[in-house]
Amino acid sequence: MATIGFIGLGKMGGPMMLNLVKAGHTVKAFDVVPAALDEAKQAGATVAAEAADAARRVDAVVTMLPAGQHVREVYLGERGVIAAAAPGTLLIDSSTIDVDTARAVSAAAGKSGLHMVDAPVSGGVGGAAAGTLTFMVGGEPAAFARAEPILQAMGKAVIHTGGPGTGQAAKICNNMLLGISMIGVCEAFALARRLGLEEQRLFDVSSKSSGQCWSLTSYCPVPGPVPSSPANRDHQPGFTASMMLKDLRLAQQAAQSAGAATPLGAAAESLYGIFCNSGKGELDFSGIIRLLEGN
Amino acid sequence: MATIGFIGLGKMGGPMMLNLVKAGHTVKAFDVVPAALDEAKQAGATVAAEAADAARRVDAVVTMLPAGQHVREVYLGERGVIAAAAPGTLLIDSSTIDVDTARAVSAAAGKSGLHMVDAPVSGGVGGAAAGTLTFMVGGEPAAFARAEPILQAMGKAVIHTGGPGTGQAAKICNNMLLGISMIGVCEAFALARRLGLEEQRLFDVSSKSSGQCWSLTSYCPVPGPVPSSPANRDHQPGFTASMMLKDLRLAQQAAQSAGAATPLGAAAESLYGIFCNSGKGELDFSGIIRLLEGN
Amino acid sequence: MATIGFIGLGKMGGPMMLNLVKAGHTVKAFDVVPAALDEAKQAGATVAAEAADAARRVDAVVTMLPAGQHVREVYLGERGVIAAAAPGTLLIDSSTIDVDTARAVSAAAGKSGLHMVDAPVSGGVGGAAAGTLTFMVGGEPAAFARAEPILQAMGKAVIHTGGPGTGQAAKICNNMLLGISMIGVCEAFALARRLGLEEQRLFDVSSKSSGQCWSLTSYCPVPGPVPSSPANRDHQPGFTASMMLKDLRLAQQAAQSAGAATPLGAAAESLYGIFCNSGKGELDFSGIIRLLEGN
Amino acid sequence: MATIGFIGLGKMGGPMMLNLVKAGHTVKAFDVVPAALDEAKQAGATVAAEAADAARRVDAVVTMLPAGQHVREVYLGERGVIAAAAPGTLLIDSSTIDVDTARAVSAAAGKSGLHMVDAPVSGGVGGAAAGTLTFMVGGEPAAFARAEPILQAMGKAVIHTGGPGTGQAAKICNNMLLGISMIGVCEAFALARRLGLEEQRLFDVSSKSSGQCWSLTSYCPVPGPVPSSPANRDHQPGFTASMMLKDLRLAQQAAQSAGAATPLGAAAESLYGIFCNSGKGELDFSGIIRLLEGN
Repeated sequence: MATIGFIGLGKMGGPMMLNLVKAGHTVKAFDVVPAALDEAKQAGATVAAEAADAARRVDAVVTMLPAGQHVREVYLGERGVIAAAAPGTLLIDSSTIDVDTARAVSAAAGKSGLHMVDAPVSGGVGGAAAGTLTFMVGGEPAAFARAEPILQAMGKAVIHTGGPGTGQAAKICNNMLLGISMIGVCEAFALARRLGLEEQRLFDVSSKSSGQCWSLTSYCPVPGPVPSSPANRDHQPGFTASMMLKDLRLAQQAAQSAGAATPLGAAAESLYGIFCNSGKGELDFSGIIRLLEGN
Repeated sequence: MATIGFIGLGKMGGPMMLNLVKAGHTVKAFDVVPAALDEAKQAGATVAAEAADAARRVDAVVTMLPAGQHVREVYLGERGVIAAAAPGTLLIDSSTIDVDTARAVSAAAGKSGLHMVDAPVSGGVGGAAAGTLTFMVGGEPAAFARAEPILQAMGKAVIHTGGPGTGQAAKICNNMLLGISMIGVCEAFALARRLGLEEQRLFDVSSKSSGQCWSLTSYCPVPGPVPSSPANRDHQPGFTASMMLKDLRLAQQAAQSAGAATPLGAAAESLYGIFCNSGKGELDFSGIIRLLEGN
Repeated sequence: MATIGFIGLGKMGGPMMLNLVKAGHTVKAFDVVPAALDEAKQAGATVAAEAADAARRVDAVVTMLPAGQHVREVYLGERGVIAAAAPGTLLIDSSTIDVDTARAVSAAAGKSGLHMVDAPVSGGVGGAAAGTLTFMVGGEPAAFARAEPILQAMGKAVIHTGGPGTGQAAKICNNMLLGISMIGVCEAFALARRLGLEEQRLFDVSSKSSGQCWSLTSYCPVPGPVPSSPANRDHQPGFTASMMLKDLRLAQQAAQSAGAATPLGAAAESLYGIFCNSGKGELDFSGIIRLLEGN
Repeated sequence: MATIGFIGLGKMGGPMMLNLVKAGHTVKAFDVVPAALDEAKQAGATVAAEAADAARRVDAVVTMLPAGQHVREVYLGERGVIAAAAPGTLLIDSSTIDVDTARAVSAAAGKSGLHMVDAPVSGGVGGAAAGTLTFMVGGEPAAFARAEPILQAMGKAVIHTGGPGTGQAAKICNNMLLGISMIGVCEAFALARRLGLEEQRLFDVSSKSSGQCWSLTSYCPVPGPVPSSPANRDHQPGFTASMMLKDLRLAQQAAQSAGAATPLGAAAESLYGIFCNSGKGELDFSGIIRLLEGN
């Protein structure tokens, strides 16, 4: 068992940290919100005074932060993790951020003799609580080997995606595809309804043929065919439309930075942007069917 | 076993007709191309002198024609199927055409005391030869019940999708979703490559998570992950880009006619239009990745 | 002065017919709505008993109908204009319809010894009343020469666009461009607002530089810069969003039929489709800025 | 006349600097390319040893740099302009960069007692040489008042767009609209051709009606109607497709950062991305019509 600094105790980070404690690790936790620190204490973690404190005298640091700018501040700041951590410390960033920042921070860590992986997750708040997250992990093989047992305490699948930044790359490529296919499924149902084709019939056909996709068969955006999907509870999330919009924007930033052409990804971002601008961002992302149908 | 008129002996219709003969049905075949008639004769079919001839004194008529205008001509013309067929004859149109035409022809058939289903297929030339097509069948339950055993001689799945026109509706909804998800998969790979994420790694992640779709896991547009996919043979079809464009156009026509908003379907149609205009229409539809990458 | 049959006395056709009467022409008017006929009578027109009646013993027939199917019925039906009109009669269809129908009807007219032009208009209800419409006229030079003086009684500009169907082609190409540029202007304002750039400042820059367009400088979608634009009266039309959607759909039909790739035209159609599906179709088409901004 | 430091002597900056010398200003010039410094010397400028040197003992500094990262380095670096310039110095950045960077640098300048405007240009290399550029200037009124006479030596129009960053905002809003309307015009011509409508006829109609825009009437993408447009010289630039792509990407970054939905702007960026990926980036941006037509 290891001593682990954990920075960022929000909706995702809080339950992830708890699973590290449950697995027997010694955890030094930090968050800017005092209430989160109280909960961490009750859960059995030590409380750190600041981010740098959580990075000292530990085997590894795990961070779960909202966006790239926070990751830059926490890692690269004067009183940041990289300045504070002892050489050889393992750094695991599980935030979902842009690839360029992930690579810049990883390079800075390497220069200071630290080992870093980017390890964004899929699985949502439910997966964080249940310890069933999937981790997409970018970094050198040695760093991955050290990170793997720690991540397994918080998830059910830990996939090595290649060198630094590839964890983030894998997450945004996958989620861009998810956003596109979800809108595609919604369009198919919206068209079917207006053509007088019952939803269950379209589901029966497409779930067994070339239109099959996770958005259809595991997360169907209309009520009925998949009883567990958010559509059956009025599109309460789940994974919110505004979270999907965040990921689609990261994908577009990466595409622009790397010179890739992603026309449907760009269109999906615009449609989720319109949907969120109309005040629907806290609905599940499958609720985008409402935009198409004018509800 | 039944006596069946079969009209339209092209790349799809020819092998479909053959499977009816093999199953023991008596077939009266017709096509405007004389060579196709010779082949039909050798295969054991009787040759009809014209479309109307194939519709007389038979239990059922099957048609497999290129587009809606041909279906109108063959069924509704002065010397057409509806004028020639005896009351009670079963009509099966397996062409992929627009929903409005399918419904108009079905209504005309009904007025003449005939029973009609629209029964477009998926599975391609390979499926037609092997008798493993999927039929999406729209029509009254009684008509479906009569059509089912005939269709089973040509396919492995026969799905009742509802009333007249819903077979066509199901096919174009499914194929619109297919076109969208294929471009989505291509965009994800194009972005991954430029971000330094290996294709196999993206496949490993997405095939087991929320980006999973048939276009990825059964028909992967880059060589390697799915050895049987056309990408491994330089995007030789398979299902051509120009066939996909035809189906996307049918979907857009249906959407316009029915008042549905299908933004990604419309974008997919435009991208396949650009691709086909550049002379690539005879490549497999997964070859659209070349457009994104500038090859 | 000529004797003219006029079929279709709606919001556009009514005032157009009136301008023919005012110019001194003898008009035989027909509409399926009795009230419209009463108004025509009071205005000084003779009332025809049916469409065919309006086409007999006249020098020319003018039609102003909602869509292609009505044009087919009125011209090609058993009791239609082409069957009724004497050889040499001039036919002028001012409806906005699909190019294929315009060409089919024109060809049928030619076979019966009649001379036809397609002459759709721009300028709206206001232009129809004021006699300031613009006519885009497709047809043979001789037919155009005969139509020109009649059209000048209803409009201020009569432009010969080429052979049959090119009037419709010119209108939908222009209106597709209009729909695209209007959304483009709306996006520029929506972005400017969120970047803290005042609307008048963007107007000042773009109205004198490379972003200049009619949608900006004559029909500005935000209140202020162009006092006469519908934005200053809460986006009351003007030219409704649902009329723009109709034209964008005609453009997409033409693009599909002709094999042209029009990605922004397709995207514009989808956006107006979403906007109209949400119940905003009777707002002016510049009101699409509300969709982008979530209002 | 003023003493002015000028940093960035490329295709745009070189001739702009020359116009300052011609107007009688004393110029201290710097560039990282030695050859550019030799030319500056011959033109009558003093040569600075580094960027900081060009910022000392001058009334104003003008910069013309490729992208936001260069602006950050030149202004915010340890040996940068802000560290070197005396309080009260006027800073003018004419680079086209992202709004966020423009605002960050302006704020840093203000904290050091410096006055800054962002003043991107339109008019291209030709306008830079002829001194006929248009400047869109964001900054406090006092700073604008000081910048105006300097900018007038390099351009024909100097427009105050509001506070810091609004010059960049105005440029990208305008150029996003330009990119959209250019593709719109190209689509209209591509559709017209396939419908048999002559290009000159569409030009005649749309240049006088609601489709009118600068991309059509001043920069027509097909040869003929506007003899001076790049289409008449095989789409040699002019303003390259890759420069348009850069501006569309800046617009998308700004839209994402500000939360604006710009679907056609996003689609335009994707289409120029595909066009540039296919090796056509050095053609004029009006050459995008080739992508639509498959040439």
